[in-house]
Amino acid sequence: MEIMQVVSDLVCSKRVVGFNNASLRVLKDLKGKQLVATDPVGVSPGEWVFTASGSAARIAMKDMKMITDLTICGIIDDWYE
Amino acid sequence: MEIMQVVSDLVCSKRVVGFNNASLRVLKDLKGKQLVATDPVGVSPGEWVFTASGSAARIAMKDMKMITDLTICGIIDDWYE
Amino acid sequence: MEIMQVVSDLVCSKRVVGFNNASLRVLKDLKGKQLVATDPVGVSPGEWVFTASGSAARIAMKDMKMITDLTICGIIDDWYE
Amino acid sequence: MEIMQVVSDLVCSKRVVGFNNASLRVLKDLKGKQLVATDPVGVSPGEWVFTASGSAARIAMKDMKMITDLTICGIIDDWYE
Amino acid sequence: MEIMQVVSDLVCSKRVVGFNNASLRVLKDLKGKQLVATDPVGVSPGEWVFTASGSAARIAMKDMKMITDLTICGIIDDWYE
Repeated sequence: MEIMQVVSDLVCSKRVVGFNNASLRVLKDLKGKQLVATDPVGVSPGEWVFTASGSAARIAMKDMKMITDLTICGIIDDWYE
Repeated sequence: MEIMQVVSDLVCSKRVVGFNNASLRVLKDLKGKQLVATDPVGVSPGEWVFTASGSAARIAMKDMKMITDLTICGIIDDWYE
Repeated sequence: MEIMQVVSDLVCSKRVVGFNNASLRVLKDLKGKQLVATDPVGVSPGEWVFTASGSAARIAMKDMKMITDLTICGIIDDWYE
Repeated sequence: MEIMQVVSDLVCSKRVVGFNNASLRVLKDLKGKQLVATDPVGVSPGEWVFTASGSAARIAMKDMKMITDLTICGIIDDWYE
Repeated sequence: MEIMQVVSDLVCSKRVVGFNNASLRVLKDLKGKQLVATDPVGVSPGEWVFTASGSAARIAMKDMKMITDLTICGIIDDWYE
């Protein structure tokens, strides 16, 4: 799993069906690269989180048919970069 | 999911069977690397999109037998790089 | 599999259900990037380990429904970087 | 899918069983890194191709039991790097 | 598949169950990064090999329950880096 920081929500008016009501967040990885993740936790900008990728991202959403390859799994307390 | 920008259509006269009628687009990721993605959304050059990779790319195409490892999932509004 | 060094435990008060009682460790890969892994071995900070990623991470946990994409598989003896 | 250029055939006298009669090519990605791919298309050195990775590579070979994680999917016409 | 060079055997006294009797080798990829792979071929330090990753690594081991994400698939003859 990777360590990332929450940047913002994703504003996206046109997308494929298959995310159901999942929240999408823009994250920044430890190299500063921005990525998009599904969020079953409920996170806020600035928080540090850890994420699962690949099919583990769908296990974390409890939905193997969801279109995701990156899911937020938890909020990290007291993270020192 | 990754954030990418649409560059062009892919012009490809000889390819394996298994893409059916899927549109193929050339995208550029946030580091400037060019990639090829299947497009179920209908995007135009210059637009910012987010993409799913791996088996999530086939879920996004609603076809688990399609030969794709990268699919455009949506158009991002008001994206500030 | 990759070669990594154990940094610390992960302190995480809020996380999704699906890790059961798995221990989570912060690791550092050979480039210095920090990652989070499930640990079925029992490792201590400073030890060198090797890790399996993707679905191999779940095989290593003996639980294909666990939310993990990185698992510690063993402690390396006498590792010279 | 990634964009790569064909370098050469792979000369390999000793290999595991499981490639059947698949042709193996050495490719170069857009960063100059050399990789090995299975080739169901029939390509020649110097041509630009696009490739599928992971399980998509096996779908492209029409053989889910083939040992491949990278398959050439088509020849790109008029590619300007 | 990637092109790598064999560095050494992996000395590892404590590891999870699930590698059976598979030999583990330390390899070096074309960027110099060291990785660990299962070896069904029987290779010696200094030899150039090509490797399959992800689930293809398990197909190459003929054992879909083996904990591996990287397997040596063959020895490359006359490799010029």
